[in-house]
Amino acid sequence: MVAAAQAQKPTSIPKSERTKARVLREALSLASRVGFSGLTFGTLAEQAGISKSGLFAHFDSKEDLQIQSLHVAEEMFVERVLRPALQQPRGVPRIRQLFSGWMDWIHSGTVPRGDILTAAAFEFDDAPDGPMRAAVVAGHGKMHDTIERLAKQAIEEGQFGKKAEPDQFAFEFLGIVHAHHHVRRLLRTDLHARRACAAFERLLATYTL
Amino acid sequence: MVAAAQAQKPTSIPKSERTKARVLREALSLASRVGFSGLTFGTLAEQAGISKSGLFAHFDSKEDLQIQSLHVAEEMFVERVLRPALQQPRGVPRIRQLFSGWMDWIHSGTVPRGDILTAAAFEFDDAPDGPMRAAVVAGHGKMHDTIERLAKQAIEEGQFGKKAEPDQFAFEFLGIVHAHHHVRRLLRTDLHARRACAAFERLLATYTL
Repeated sequence: MVAAAQAQKPTSIPKSERTKARVLREALSLASRVGFSGLTFGTLAEQAGISKSGLFAHFDSKEDLQIQSLHVAEEMFVERVLRPALQQPRGVPRIRQLFSGWMDWIHSGTVPRGDILTAAAFEFDDAPDGPMRAAVVAGHGKMHDTIERLAKQAIEEGQFGKKAEPDQFAFEFLGIVHAHHHVRRLLRTDLHARRACAAFERLLATYTL
Repeated sequence: MVAAAQAQKPTSIPKSERTKARVLREALSLASRVGFSGLTFGTLAEQAGISKSGLFAHFDSKEDLQIQSLHVAEEMFVERVLRPALQQPRGVPRIRQLFSGWMDWIHSGTVPRGDILTAAAFEFDDAPDGPMRAAVVAGHGKMHDTIERLAKQAIEEGQFGKKAEPDQFAFEFLGIVHAHHHVRRLLRTDLHARRACAAFERLLATYTL
């Protein structure tokens, strides 16, 4: 796949696709500042220096714009956090890499102001039903399922006890990430990263007992 | 104190105070639905059936209204969750009561739609600086300090190990509460309460080892 990607010339990407990719990057940058709810044709047109009618060519509706932007963030997360984790040996090494990659993702400023996926989950957890909320819930479900699968593999590898509950592990893993994201934004300091790491080590330790 | 409260006749409370108390209850009910940011003189006047000018008599500004409403919620939390915990013996019994009382507070519908204090913390964690954000941060700090103090007492009572870190314990305790609050709102189910309780038991177990 890497070879195929390298063989593809940049010029083979149609201009409209390149424009759309640029617009989606701007959309993500905007959403990271004002939330996905604040991402509209009007605000994005101003941010990206493109006409509203230009945006209508790429997105059916405000919800479509928000959902496509969320998916771009999810793809970035897969590329930068999940994929490197899955390249590790099954079980605990994958789990460790997922956690440390996630911490890096939060702190690196890849997306301004921290973890935009967690931010979206917090933003829409109490929103009325709608396509964007459904997309956020689906994203949360996929992440939960992924961590659950890694925990199952850790049991299969004999690293976690046979009675370990993968679903419980996923709940607690995500809880630590979310708690860190929240405290970091609330108190505007990275000092609590070591608290999150210590919590993760304690979690792992009780499962590998 | 209870005797003193009982001896006090309701009629001794001035009418303006009673009106204000009613208005603050309406304000809290409104904030639990639309967030504290959505709590303004205009929205509250409509909800409480009182004129805007009537509200000006009680509150200096929108921020003052939001902060006073937050403080009412904090007083309710102290009354219903914190005080019963502090009536338990020092150390682990207090910690257990605080956690189970908090779970009840989330599920009881005392305040519609769950834990309004956690909701406020999520709402303002990425807000611009301002008096309401400062009040939310102060509330978080007080709660963190309280849990830290309970953990210190558990060490003094010989229930937690001497090397236990009260600050770490407080971070993780709050993390479990916040994770539960968030997942409950996101997935709209109470099914994960048992995950939160199991996480709390695991947390306690590692500290009481």
